[in-house]
Amino acid sequence: MKESARGKAAVGKERYSDARGYFDDDLCEFVITDMFPKRPLVNYLWSEDAVADADQFGFGKSLAGIGSFRRGLDCGERLVYIKDRKSGELYSPNRNYGRLPFEQFRCHVGLGYQKIVSVYNGLKVTFTLLVPDAGYAVLYLAEAEELAGKERDLDLYFALRPQANLTVHTSYGSADRDKEFGGLCYPHFSYQAETDYGCLYFASEHGFTSYCVSKGDFCGTYGSWEHPDGVAAQALPSRGTTFEDDYVAAVSLPLRLGPREQKSFAFALAAGRSAAESGALASSLAKTSVFYSQLALQKEKNASYQRVFRAEIPDPLLRSLGNTWLKRQLSLGKTWGRIYGKGFRDVMQDIAAFVSLDIPLARTRILYTLAKQYGNGNTIRMFEPDLLLPYNDGAAWIPATISAFLKESGDFGILEEIVPYLDGGEDSVLGHMVRGVEYLLGDLGSHGLVLLRGGDWNDSLNGAGNLNKGESVWLSLATVKAAKECAEILEKLGKKEEKERILGLAGRLSENILIKGMSGGHFIYAYDDWGGVIGGEESEEGKFYLNPQTWAVLADVGDRDTQNAVMDLVEEKLKCAFGYELCAPPYTKGSDRLGRVSYFVPGMVENASVYVHGVAFKIAADCRLGRGDLAFDTLRSVLCTNPKVQASGVEPYAVTNMFIGPDNPYRAGDAPMSWVTGSAGWLYRDLTEEIFGIKAEFDGLRISPVFPSCWNEAYAERIFRGVLYKISYRRTGRRRIAVEGSEIQGDILPPQTGKDSVAVTVEY
Amino acid sequence: MKESARGKAAVGKERYSDARGYFDDDLCEFVITDMFPKRPLVNYLWSEDAVADADQFGFGKSLAGIGSFRRGLDCGERLVYIKDRKSGELYSPNRNYGRLPFEQFRCHVGLGYQKIVSVYNGLKVTFTLLVPDAGYAVLYLAEAEELAGKERDLDLYFALRPQANLTVHTSYGSADRDKEFGGLCYPHFSYQAETDYGCLYFASEHGFTSYCVSKGDFCGTYGSWEHPDGVAAQALPSRGTTFEDDYVAAVSLPLRLGPREQKSFAFALAAGRSAAESGALASSLAKTSVFYSQLALQKEKNASYQRVFRAEIPDPLLRSLGNTWLKRQLSLGKTWGRIYGKGFRDVMQDIAAFVSLDIPLARTRILYTLAKQYGNGNTIRMFEPDLLLPYNDGAAWIPATISAFLKESGDFGILEEIVPYLDGGEDSVLGHMVRGVEYLLGDLGSHGLVLLRGGDWNDSLNGAGNLNKGESVWLSLATVKAAKECAEILEKLGKKEEKERILGLAGRLSENILIKGMSGGHFIYAYDDWGGVIGGEESEEGKFYLNPQTWAVLADVGDRDTQNAVMDLVEEKLKCAFGYELCAPPYTKGSDRLGRVSYFVPGMVENASVYVHGVAFKIAADCRLGRGDLAFDTLRSVLCTNPKVQASGVEPYAVTNMFIGPDNPYRAGDAPMSWVTGSAGWLYRDLTEEIFGIKAEFDGLRISPVFPSCWNEAYAERIFRGVLYKISYRRTGRRRIAVEGSEIQGDILPPQTGKDSVAVTVEY
Repeated sequence: MKESARGKAAVGKERYSDARGYFDDDLCEFVITDMFPKRPLVNYLWSEDAVADADQFGFGKSLAGIGSFRRGLDCGERLVYIKDRKSGELYSPNRNYGRLPFEQFRCHVGLGYQKIVSVYNGLKVTFTLLVPDAGYAVLYLAEAEELAGKERDLDLYFALRPQANLTVHTSYGSADRDKEFGGLCYPHFSYQAETDYGCLYFASEHGFTSYCVSKGDFCGTYGSWEHPDGVAAQALPSRGTTFEDDYVAAVSLPLRLGPREQKSFAFALAAGRSAAESGALASSLAKTSVFYSQLALQKEKNASYQRVFRAEIPDPLLRSLGNTWLKRQLSLGKTWGRIYGKGFRDVMQDIAAFVSLDIPLARTRILYTLAKQYGNGNTIRMFEPDLLLPYNDGAAWIPATISAFLKESGDFGILEEIVPYLDGGEDSVLGHMVRGVEYLLGDLGSHGLVLLRGGDWNDSLNGAGNLNKGESVWLSLATVKAAKECAEILEKLGKKEEKERILGLAGRLSENILIKGMSGGHFIYAYDDWGGVIGGEESEEGKFYLNPQTWAVLADVGDRDTQNAVMDLVEEKLKCAFGYELCAPPYTKGSDRLGRVSYFVPGMVENASVYVHGVAFKIAADCRLGRGDLAFDTLRSVLCTNPKVQASGVEPYAVTNMFIGPDNPYRAGDAPMSWVTGSAGWLYRDLTEEIFGIKAEFDGLRISPVFPSCWNEAYAERIFRGVLYKISYRRTGRRRIAVEGSEIQGDILPPQTGKDSVAVTVEY
Repeated sequence: MKESARGKAAVGKERYSDARGYFDDDLCEFVITDMFPKRPLVNYLWSEDAVADADQFGFGKSLAGIGSFRRGLDCGERLVYIKDRKSGELYSPNRNYGRLPFEQFRCHVGLGYQKIVSVYNGLKVTFTLLVPDAGYAVLYLAEAEELAGKERDLDLYFALRPQANLTVHTSYGSADRDKEFGGLCYPHFSYQAETDYGCLYFASEHGFTSYCVSKGDFCGTYGSWEHPDGVAAQALPSRGTTFEDDYVAAVSLPLRLGPREQKSFAFALAAGRSAAESGALASSLAKTSVFYSQLALQKEKNASYQRVFRAEIPDPLLRSLGNTWLKRQLSLGKTWGRIYGKGFRDVMQDIAAFVSLDIPLARTRILYTLAKQYGNGNTIRMFEPDLLLPYNDGAAWIPATISAFLKESGDFGILEEIVPYLDGGEDSVLGHMVRGVEYLLGDLGSHGLVLLRGGDWNDSLNGAGNLNKGESVWLSLATVKAAKECAEILEKLGKKEEKERILGLAGRLSENILIKGMSGGHFIYAYDDWGGVIGGEESEEGKFYLNPQTWAVLADVGDRDTQNAVMDLVEEKLKCAFGYELCAPPYTKGSDRLGRVSYFVPGMVENASVYVHGVAFKIAADCRLGRGDLAFDTLRSVLCTNPKVQASGVEPYAVTNMFIGPDNPYRAGDAPMSWVTGSAGWLYRDLTEEIFGIKAEFDGLRISPVFPSCWNEAYAERIFRGVLYKISYRRTGRRRIAVEGSEIQGDILPPQTGKDSVAVTVEY
């Protein structure tokens, strides 16, 4: 804590802000000040058991991950209402439907919580959500504080929407007040149920005076959340129901406040295998004291992530993102994938970025995820729920993650851990990795390139390889990169023969890529099943793809001149006002020889959007080629420092999966898919490992910055193998690194055993 | 027309009405006068190509049946708004969100149309919907009429919600104004599309001054249908979009009216395989003249159905239902099944009730549906979309429908029509029927009863027979009934040997039912796979089931004393304030030896609801036993003549699938599932064939009424084989039938060839 406090003090005080709010780096918050921004601004809250999202009103959805089953908890409105008992006047402090003249509104987007604070008529109401550190549950806290020095005779209502129905048969479901714990119970137990967790339970710390369990009762048949008949009435109807599409958990409580008095109301929604189990859990969690201790846990956990890397960055937004928010976003990915499911490739990449933040948890996640590999070396496309399509790239992502883990932790024991295969059998972690690489190196087509099969990173090129003839240049490059990472580990283990064999195959694959994988001076994307070129000048549309160029650099295929040349073409062909297109020109004609990509509207997703994952690869490639200014400009072009990005309405604190591409006739530049993307992990590594150049290696910490020319000095702190490295950078025009004043050879700091911290000076 | 006009004049003028509205039998309408009834009151509109529902606001969903694919057209709000150009004042004449003091409101629930009329501030606005007689389309007509003698300078807005997305990939979809036809176009063409009909098109008769294609643009990010930002603004934003979850088709048009002036605006939504195809269709339909000619077509078609059976019924509600609305509801079933899919058994029953209304269409539907039978004689459970679960009762429904068709039409040629089997091969219609009966007669378990397999009529007893050991008493009874119906046809064809063989097997099955299928003086429902009794005194729950008792009567199994005894037990065990429970007591413990039924909340669906289909069987059984008062009371108990049914909020003009049973702790008596039920067809036949006793037979029209004791006279008209029978009933205490004054022997009127109409007097 001491160290990090010092580091924090050293960070400049200027902060990013825009019309919607500002970063409060001291509290690790983004504070939303505009209650009605262009589009809702979303936060994610999660544990290993449950995940929730919440916008600036606190609205959103939550679900529990019960094995591979996703059980909904709540979804949609989460509403506090305040009703004056005398006048009947009614408003919602966290939604303000009527756009009343609130004296104040703030939504504190926090690490592990979302807190909405409003003041109206001298009444301060705070509504906070969090997901507890364990359990299939979500917690809600409503706090009211009298500010005007008056007596208040109010009622507080709280309403949310339990996702009680687990099947289409609403006849299984009912809801009513429960006698044992006094909360509201929503059982839905079905024949041949997909989950045992058939019961939701809503608990209220202080009980309630009236309640309601259906939307019809709460809003009224012809009412709405804005004008709920139930709240307008004297009391909620307090009756059970069954056969509902829309359940509600709504309660009313008296809220009598003296001058300056404050009261708090904790609520919890939990899932369980019975009314008793879910009731016990929800009741134990619906306590103000529990809420605050859980809030403290969240802050503590996130503080430890803050300390691992902390930098003074002469760009306020990049500082908030790099020190805080990118870590948060990639941590979501490493546990929850893309929420709707966990892509093998996605989770592997997120873990690779996550290892420095929490080594034990990263280790657990690696072992868990490797069990989703088949015995032949290929992997599942997605798990939880399983998606069994024959995608072919999964194994290519394993070595980078294993390598990152080994280099960060020095824990080579993981390589001997035994992990089962998805379809039977088992092997060590090392065996998993090698088998995956050998699978890819052997799965070649007629051009000697790796088969595309159902698809690769480009999920939507899913019509080009199903006959098992189409070959992917990008996947071939990824395979070369994976083979080299694998070989580096084998070398470290002294397995020279295995290493040489893999490098030999990778070398031949590299040659094939250079001979068969280029056209018109750049790397093509693939050959389809009929031998047609995808991503070449001869292609009718989609003539130039981003990822094969950047991955040639990342895999170090071709000489430096070739790499520079193709990256120059990237600038020429793909650059737009908010990043780089994934391919150009977009497809306008659906083709079954390509797949989904060609049917997407131009500018959408893989069809020539600015796919930020691709942009993140490009930044890494820029850095590898020493193009610091390009890397920096590219990074800033996809963040809210770019006015066009800000105008899209995207959260300043979250990276979007894509910007709708410049060729889209309708919504070019819009950013509708934030948070849930592998971009965050890559951008974090771009910033920390490529731009700041701080990278774990087997033999120590490498420091090899590629700064933009506008940065003449910088400062970063990095905890590596228990030692805090305090790294001061200064531009001098010569490369020189000194540890505690002593110059070292090369750019790898040797292990600093026995020390708590060391000062490093880097000239560049 | 002459005849029916006379018939109509003879019908009494007293009408059913309640707080929600009244029947207008002259116009065949139910007129809703309460804009905000307890629950929405729904109407269905359909052709063979498309189906729509609409409540008293006109809200609802529509879809096209394209082969086995269900393509959504619109869903949810369908809104007319009127905006004063000067004041900006805004309201919706068909929804009245603000509950303004309308001078008038009427929703005319019509046969094939839904017309909402309101008057506010001297402006009459009429909003009418219909489904055209052909094509994947829905038509909307907004008409405005100045009543106050003033000049009006208004804007009219119309908005609906096209269901444009056909896949989860919203990146396939976009929407914008189309240049060719000037309407709004919503393409969603996808890789490996499930349907070619990837394009929706919205056309406006008079074009528009501004438009909007997304909910975000129309309602606003934080707006609503009640307060749409788009309508509040000077003009709609008139821009395209992509990647939307919620599309909207909204247009604004100037509405300048002089005193008493009237204007009309036609709109159409259509699906097609391209913008050109859907645009051409929608544009051709979006015309006031087309709307009115389509409306005339609807009325003409329904008028022909009206003439087939028309009765003076000394119960106004029964009269409206019997003469008009039951026909309408069963006609929906015969084409659209249960909307979400077409159950083989459901469609077969609906056709059986439909044959008298439209013989050629019934014939087409029979041939179409028989192609859903497997070569082994069993049938699919549901088609469009196909549900391949091993339900075992499908074949038992075939003979009754064939028999009804033959008796109504005299068209024995249908028996020689060749129809394919679902899994290959083909056979004549006769072969299909016989094969089905023989399949069932041979599919016996250890008690010599028919196997239950995946389930029978009781869809939710789906855990009891999957090991192919459980046997169904009900299905055995249904098989006996089917075998007898089949044998009657074979007899008529002179196929004595085949007939005798089938009757012999049916006789042995009947014996087994009487020996093994009874317990505690009543018929049990089934044996489960483990030999346990379902629906017997020895059962822990669900000790007594309705359907095996009623079907023993319908199948004429057991002697009359036995039949009377089990029906007496029905009165004792199952009667409640709004009909008869399907079983009792309800299941409270989920059991995998029973299936879904036991997990349902008590009182829900097959778990002891008042399932009206079961009640309809019971009415028929009452009549077979000559229990006219019981039949009549039972019929009235499930209709709005029963105050408890009226209180449920159910449509007076539509039969509900179920009433939530009396043992339900939450919603006993509620009727949430109207229209979509096989009950309507059975109740229609109960009323016409059992109570009025007018039933087609091979040799003529049988007249054998079973009236309640409170009816001393009645009158009915029935068209049968081209002759209008005008039947006057009078209670005299002796059975006597005279045709044109001449008494006949027996109760079958011989063919009246060469006559247009005959007068029949029936004493009873």
